[in-house]
Parts: sequence; structure tokens; C-alpha cells
Amino acid sequence: MAEENKSKSTNNKQIVFKDYVVGYPKETDMELRSSEPSIMVPPEEGGLLLKNLYLSCDPYMRGRMSKPIPNASYVNSFVPGSVITGYGVSQVIDSRHPDFQVGDLVWGFTGWELFTLLPTPLGLTKIKYTNDHNIPLSYYTGILGMPGLTAYVGFHEICSPKKGETVYVSAASGAVGQLVGQFAKLMGCYVVGSAGTKEKVELLKNKFGFDDAFNYKEEQDLTAALKRFFPQGIDIYFENVGGRMLDAVLLNMNVHGRIAVCGLISQYNLTEHDGVHNLFCMITKRIRMQGFVEPDHKHMYPQFLELVVQYIREGKIVYMEDTAEGLEEAPSALIGLFSGRNVGKQVVCIRHDE
Amino acid sequence: MAEENKSKSTNNKQIVFKDYVVGYPKETDMELRSSEPSIMVPPEEGGLLLKNLYLSCDPYMRGRMSKPIPNASYVNSFVPGSVITGYGVSQVIDSRHPDFQVGDLVWGFTGWELFTLLPTPLGLTKIKYTNDHNIPLSYYTGILGMPGLTAYVGFHEICSPKKGETVYVSAASGAVGQLVGQFAKLMGCYVVGSAGTKEKVELLKNKFGFDDAFNYKEEQDLTAALKRFFPQGIDIYFENVGGRMLDAVLLNMNVHGRIAVCGLISQYNLTEHDGVHNLFCMITKRIRMQGFVEPDHKHMYPQFLELVVQYIREGKIVYMEDTAEGLEEAPSALIGLFSGRNVGKQVVCIRHDE
Repeated sequence: MAEENKSKSTNNKQIVFKDYVVGYPKETDMELRSSEPSIMVPPEEGGLLLKNLYLSCDPYMRGRMSKPIPNASYVNSFVPGSVITGYGVSQVIDSRHPDFQVGDLVWGFTGWELFTLLPTPLGLTKIKYTNDHNIPLSYYTGILGMPGLTAYVGFHEICSPKKGETVYVSAASGAVGQLVGQFAKLMGCYVVGSAGTKEKVELLKNKFGFDDAFNYKEEQDLTAALKRFFPQGIDIYFENVGGRMLDAVLLNMNVHGRIAVCGLISQYNLTEHDGVHNLFCMITKRIRMQGFVEPDHKHMYPQFLELVVQYIREGKIVYMEDTAEGLEEAPSALIGLFSGRNVGKQVVCIRHDE
Repeated sequence: MAEENKSKSTNNKQIVFKDYVVGYPKETDMELRSSEPSIMVPPEEGGLLLKNLYLSCDPYMRGRMSKPIPNASYVNSFVPGSVITGYGVSQVIDSRHPDFQVGDLVWGFTGWELFTLLPTPLGLTKIKYTNDHNIPLSYYTGILGMPGLTAYVGFHEICSPKKGETVYVSAASGAVGQLVGQFAKLMGCYVVGSAGTKEKVELLKNKFGFDDAFNYKEEQDLTAALKRFFPQGIDIYFENVGGRMLDAVLLNMNVHGRIAVCGLISQYNLTEHDGVHNLFCMITKRIRMQGFVEPDHKHMYPQFLELVVQYIREGKIVYMEDTAEGLEEAPSALIGLFSGRNVGKQVVCIRHDE
């Protein structure tokens, strides 16, 4: 209530979104803005001041770089001239909210900047397991954050998997794909993944325990490739890419197959999306295809967290990150997602855990 | 057991499938074959001899005219040189199966011919309600047969409808569409249908009780048209046509909307299917799209039959048929489906009820 705001003198640095993007985004669509020295305004009643530790680079952010299309998206576009926002891991350094104390570690929506002033801690989650429990804080941008819950609900809730079924995962070494494959193996499914380099294919087979994997860039005929890897057909497809991959999958699906539509990264940078031509298979094979987003399933986070932390401790699940060092590397790290440059979950480390 | 087969001398006439079809089918892809006089072979042990009364013309039959594609369909292609098969209403005139007596009326799979010899009555259903109950036998090709159960399970099981939701039905005056609209109204939904002539649009509004209807051929911009008819968006789409209609619907769907994929009649005669470009809406709107076919839901037939016969008697549901007279008219009737010539369910009457 009392206007006892203390001013703090500090430097902030921000990654600012310049203007709406058409086609592939470039580093120059963002710029580093430095304001040193500046006065950080302390939070108003109900707000928090965060020191950001890790930022998350996620494919859905491409959609936010486009001019807004009414009714077409579930997240708002970035505002030209304003700081980029996204998931991250932060520490509370000033709090005027009763649920958060100075020093608390949190994950959720924050700014691409050194310090973020949140008027309200909407969707912010306090971190339960930290370095003290042998859990890296960066994991809350991935396996223990949005991509982790995405993989978990996408596979277990949307795909209705059964032991022994065949599962195909595209973009399989990414933040979500590597987990979907491992969840499917833990359930007793036969799992094949695809990725875009030899290195990633090796990871899928040797690190993440997929039964098989292939480099889609080396396949002239994706339909024939899938037939080779799934001679008995595909029961479950975890869709991360879209376009011609989806067409090839539809021809290889089994009757009563399920497709969870998590992402369509092959399409995000196209000005006109590829047409999908084989939807007749939806009828002939009675396929269920379902899109989903993680925020709809947030209520499952507590049970998900306990299960996956247990898996990590028991070595039943491994996770691979690709870490860029420093805020100034964030634009390049984000752009890299769309050429598949990252190997594993793309994180930006702003400050190492303190 | 005993080989006491009696020969019967009678004329048979058949509609024979000439050869696989590419593009739009023509009447000349079929021919009338007359074999008079011929000796009808009586059924062997377990078989039936049927006298056909009504034949059903259904859009899915187009798929059976194409060269078979491995794993791509749930029904077999017609065999060049052999009689066309499909749903129909028949009377048993000779039986060597314990469940069927001479004189029984049945519906199910039969031949496009005057008499059909069935080695086994697979999927054949005895007709419970007949002219004696004021139920026309032809209804078992439509409202009380495959299209009826298709509409019922497609709407109630696949669409998960709730009172007050908005429902869009394409090909809405067809055998299935007219029923989906009426089931949706009975549930308390707001229902709009589309069709391809002014006459059909009038029927939708004035006979079938749709809240509104439009002629898709008069709309330059289907996306804008749907926005006009559904300013609050579409909760449920019952898909009968595919192609650009599906693209326009995807842009107008509400969050957590459902699409039942029943048919894609706009695509059946194309050598290359149209691409669907707006599947990104599956994610942003968390849409569930599900293909289905009636045979998977056959167990629901008894409860469906009782309910719908009741609705018919109470005048809560009406049904419209377009009847061609005589076996020789069957090819023209079937072809007419693909130009939308039929108004209501297309039936071929072989013999009037006896």
C-alpha cells in the first residue's frame, strides 16, 4: 500500500523485437538494447522484479514474430520496438506479492533481458527441485518446463498409447521429441524418430534409446522410408513438423491410429503453407488427429514434476541441452531452431546459477 | 447337408463394372448385362438367394471404382467384369441358413442385380419395422440403414456435442447431412448447412429445420461466408466434402472444436487431391479431427433403430429420398451423386414393396 518503492541503480540489457517477420527470421530482426546506467523501477503492489538466469528458445515463438491474424493464434504477436518475451528461469530480487519472497527461484513467462519487472506473476511457478537436489535450473526451460509437460500430456493424454504400439516422432531430438520417445519406450512401445543430421540420428539411437532413427534429409521418398521403418504401420504419430512428412505418415498409419499435433516447424517460415493431400486416410483408417497446447494441461504439472524428477534420478530419462552463453547470443540461438542447428533443447544462459 | 438343390428358371439382370475409373465416373463405366433365360443356382449350405427391392447409391462407392491402393481403403475395389455391389433392401426367396426364412426382409450388402446369391449372409440385418408399421422399406438404404447410423454415431459419438453449440454441416441435404442437422437440432444446437442449389438450401431451412443454410456455389469467399453465418465461430463441423471447404472451416473453428470426417466428396474424382493448408489451426485452436466409418459402430444399431423409428413416428425427424425407378437407371443415379444432381438420399427402386 505505502509508496515505499526503493529505486535501484543497475544496468539492464534487452533483446528488442524490431518488426514483423515474413519468411525465415534473421538475427537482425532483433537487436540488443543497452541502457546503462538506468534506474530499475521497483515493482508496484502485487508485482515482482526478476533477475533472469536462463531463457528458452522455442519454435512456437516464430508465430509471435508474424503480424497478428485475428482468431488464428493462442499467443499474442511480439510488439515491434518492445522486448521479446518467452519462458525462462529467474530469481526474485524484489517482491510485492505475498506468494513470492526475495531469493525464490521461479520459471514461467519473462522478458529477454537481464531484469524483468512483472506487474503480476501470472503463470509463474516456484521451483521445487534445484541444484541442491542435483537438478539443473536450466531444466525448467525444457524437461521440467513447458516442453516437458508438452511431451508428457501430448503422449499420454492425446495419443492414448498402449504397450506394444508403434510410435513415430518427428523432430525427435528436439526439446519435446527426445522426451516423447523416452516416455514411449518407458510404456513399452516401439519407437522410431527422425531428425535432420547424422549426429542427431546417432543420439536418438544411442543416447535416447529409440529403437531406430533416420535422417529425413537423406530420404528421397518419405512414404517409402516410413514403410521401411514401420512394415506393420504406425499406430501413433507425434507431429512436430507438418507438410510433406504428414502426408507420408497418413499413408503409413494403421487403422484407428492417433496423431498428436504438437508443432508444424516445417511450415512456420513459409508465406504459403504446404498443402496436405492425404486426409482421405483420416476416413479409411479412422484416424484421430488432435492439436493441443501445454497451457490447457497446466493442472497436470505437479504430478508430472514428481514423476519426471524421479525418472531423472533413477536414470530412466536423460535430457540434452544446447546452451548459448550470454543474452547477446539469444537472437542467433532462436534463429538456429529453424535451420535445425541446435542439438537438443536450445537454452540461453544469462547468468550461471548462483 | 443333402444335395437337394432345386433349380429355378428365371431372368437375372445385372449392372456390371467395366473397368477402373480415373477422374469423374460415367454411366458407360457400367453396363447392363441381361441373362435371359438363365438358371438361378440355388444357395449352398449356409447361403441365401435374395430378390433385390431397393439399391443404395452412396458416395463411398466412388472409391471402389478406383484401382486398389494397398492399405489405403477399408473397402475393396469393384472387380472389372463383375457385378457392382452395395447396400440394398432385399427379400429372401431361398434359404439354407438357419437364421433366415423365405419371405424375410433384410438390408445389407447385396448385388446390383435382380437376384443375388449370397454364400453367407455376412452383415445382413433382418428388417424389424416394415410397411405394416408405416415405415417404407426404402428407408433401410438411408435413415434406418448405413447413412442413418453414420449420421447418428458421427454426430453423437465423434463430435461430442453439447447443447447450445454451433454446428456446421456440409453436403447438408444428402443422405447423411440432412440427418446430422436434425440430430443437432434435437440436441439444442445452432445448425447451419450448405448445399449446391437454391432448392436444396430451401429444403434445409424449411423442411429439415436448419437454423440457416447457404449455397456454397454462390460464395466467392468461403471463409468470409462462414464468418457471416457463424460470427461466434464453429464448435462442430461435420465434414462431408473436404478440400477448400475444410480450409475455410479451420479458420472459423472455435478453440476446442471438433471435426468429424465422414466424407470428402469434393475430392473423390480428382486425380490429385487438393491440398489443405490451414492445419496450423489444429494446434492454435486445439481441434480434434476424427475420421470414422459406420461398420465400426454396428453394435449401436439396435438402440439407434428404436430411437429413430420413434422420432419418425413422432414427426421429430423427416427424411427425403430421390428415387430412380428400375435397375437400368442405377448407373445414372450413382453418377448423379458426384454432380449433386440428387435431392436427398439417392435410392434405386428395383421392385416396389410386395
